[in-house]
Amino acid sequence: MAVDEEILRARAYLLRVAEPPAPQTGRFVDRVGAVAAAEAIRRGDVSREVAKETSARRKNDHAEADLAAAAAAGARLLVPEDPSWPHWPFACFALAASDELVSPLGLWVRGPGSLAELTERAVAVVGARNATGYGMHVASDLGRALASAGQTVVSGAAIGIDGAAHRGALSVGGPTIAVLACGPDRVYPASHSAMIERIAATGLVVSEYPPGAVPARHRFLVRNRLIAALAAGTVVVEAALRSGAQRTASDARALGTVLMAVPGPVTSAASAGCHELLRRDALLVSSAAEVTEATGRLGIDLAAPLPRPERPTDGLDEQQRLVHDALPPRAARDVGWLAVESGLGTDAVRAALVELERRSLALHQEGRWQRVTEPPSD
Amino acid sequence: MAVDEEILRARAYLLRVAEPPAPQTGRFVDRVGAVAAAEAIRRGDVSREVAKETSARRKNDHAEADLAAAAAAGARLLVPEDPSWPHWPFACFALAASDELVSPLGLWVRGPGSLAELTERAVAVVGARNATGYGMHVASDLGRALASAGQTVVSGAAIGIDGAAHRGALSVGGPTIAVLACGPDRVYPASHSAMIERIAATGLVVSEYPPGAVPARHRFLVRNRLIAALAAGTVVVEAALRSGAQRTASDARALGTVLMAVPGPVTSAASAGCHELLRRDALLVSSAAEVTEATGRLGIDLAAPLPRPERPTDGLDEQQRLVHDALPPRAARDVGWLAVESGLGTDAVRAALVELERRSLALHQEGRWQRVTEPPSD
Repeated sequence: MAVDEEILRARAYLLRVAEPPAPQTGRFVDRVGAVAAAEAIRRGDVSREVAKETSARRKNDHAEADLAAAAAAGARLLVPEDPSWPHWPFACFALAASDELVSPLGLWVRGPGSLAELTERAVAVVGARNATGYGMHVASDLGRALASAGQTVVSGAAIGIDGAAHRGALSVGGPTIAVLACGPDRVYPASHSAMIERIAATGLVVSEYPPGAVPARHRFLVRNRLIAALAAGTVVVEAALRSGAQRTASDARALGTVLMAVPGPVTSAASAGCHELLRRDALLVSSAAEVTEATGRLGIDLAAPLPRPERPTDGLDEQQRLVHDALPPRAARDVGWLAVESGLGTDAVRAALVELERRSLALHQEGRWQRVTEPPSD
Repeated sequence: MAVDEEILRARAYLLRVAEPPAPQTGRFVDRVGAVAAAEAIRRGDVSREVAKETSARRKNDHAEADLAAAAAAGARLLVPEDPSWPHWPFACFALAASDELVSPLGLWVRGPGSLAELTERAVAVVGARNATGYGMHVASDLGRALASAGQTVVSGAAIGIDGAAHRGALSVGGPTIAVLACGPDRVYPASHSAMIERIAATGLVVSEYPPGAVPARHRFLVRNRLIAALAAGTVVVEAALRSGAQRTASDARALGTVLMAVPGPVTSAASAGCHELLRRDALLVSSAAEVTEATGRLGIDLAAPLPRPERPTDGLDEQQRLVHDALPPRAARDVGWLAVESGLGTDAVRAALVELERRSLALHQEGRWQRVTEPPSD
């Protein structure tokens, strides 16, 4: 099922010539096929719209060299003609009525995983570079718990939240996908090179930029759409009011995937972007189980209800509660006194006392009753 | 406009005889009037439903004594026949199809304020007794800022969040209302007696329980409906998963007032109840301005947009951004190089450079261009 070399060369050429996102080029390729499109672009024999996206670099035909450089770096070119292309996740691009949110022309990938398989159950965890200890802790916990639950953690390998999420997944041997904004032969940020190598060894490192490409600012933003698209949902863990993570969030929203955010202290600027998303339309999540429930298989991935504290008075009916409240903690009283105190008739008081005694909530001594004390609560 | 003494005596009698909430008694009083209802109940000449709520205590006619005890404690009885009765806030009880959510038969009040006036613009701030330093800080800040904005802060005078909210309002001389679950001649909790006296001196201390009544557990829950009803909205600041604050929240929801919650760290059990409310239907609020916007006058009490960090590249168009990204930070390059790097035509590059130079984002030297460096960001 190997993809034709000619297609690989055509897509490698297109990925270098058209700076992503290249909506017109994408449509042209979809219409005439990668090989014919590459031919036409190389000759300059294309519409004005496609020319606008391709004329500056159309003579830079480095396809062979790029494929070789990628191979030397352990990467390969994944193309839509390949069975492990993530057609299903990328179908969300069709939903987004935006020229910025388009499927890539191909992806340089490094690692043993199949992108289609890894994204069958995947969640993006993204957030601030400038994260707090709280955010790092939550992202790492989420990464670990999602991976343990069989989800692939998708993120951008950045300093801060991204790195913590990847590391959480790696810590339990779970697959994780890092989408980079530079060429497949580069690692960015440099301080994460060991982590990125580990991801490449067990999961996948993915990029739509050709070998040698540097991570320009614009590319981080464009890259974010791939993080959002490869996952069923995106969780933002800490984000300042204006941040790349908010861009990924708005991509997730536009792509129709599940947008989630983790809250934090309202006194923390690092959580202000999350709170803004939550005030708008994001779903608040406080655990991996809640993330899985929101993104998972219907009726299967339900979060267990949160454990609730139990009280000895649970299950008492209204009258039993009133009598229990009326019972004095020290000096015992008779049924008549309890009737006035509780506002109930004496028969109702007697009936309630039977149940309260059965539950060891009331103490009976010579026709008088008192409460079995427990600490007061809210 | 003094209320007839006979009505005051009748309502004082009813408040002692019928343990709140007493929906059947309330309906009976609404139908025949307080004086006739009290007469009939005293005689035992009432329907089975009303009898169920009143028979145990109907012979306890302490009306005169209760009025005297209240007066001795500086309290007075406020009744629906009084012009300062909060008819408008209590109209929400008509919305709630629940026998637990009914208007009180009267209120013992202590303090200089008019309950009707104080509740024209009022917000309830409630939460955990077992609050964290974070929660106390937020509640106190909210209390202060809401009071400064002319809102009355309503709460339950409890240890923890309630007390912090009251104190925040008191700190700026703002009016605040404490709704207690005990008689008007008592203070609970005892450790808040000085605070409750300050509230009585400047705002209002309110209760539907007769003089001498102790704050039984059941009464805290029943009292919570009054906190919710007296305010246009309820803010929960920290609440455990099962707590009185969540009861107040569910009352606010049932009464159709605005339900809000303050988020906190997902690692904090004290915020778990807030997060549960936010996952359901509560509005996330992170500041007093957001609370006021949600509960305030339409089009007047709008929260100012949050300040957003500004960047020198704000307002650049797509092509200008691409060229700016392509500009090398050190070794300057010519227009042809920039065209290939950015993927744009040379004319577009030249046009973008004019604007980038005007904004001091690009530096021009002998036909070559480089970036004016600024620190990288997300």
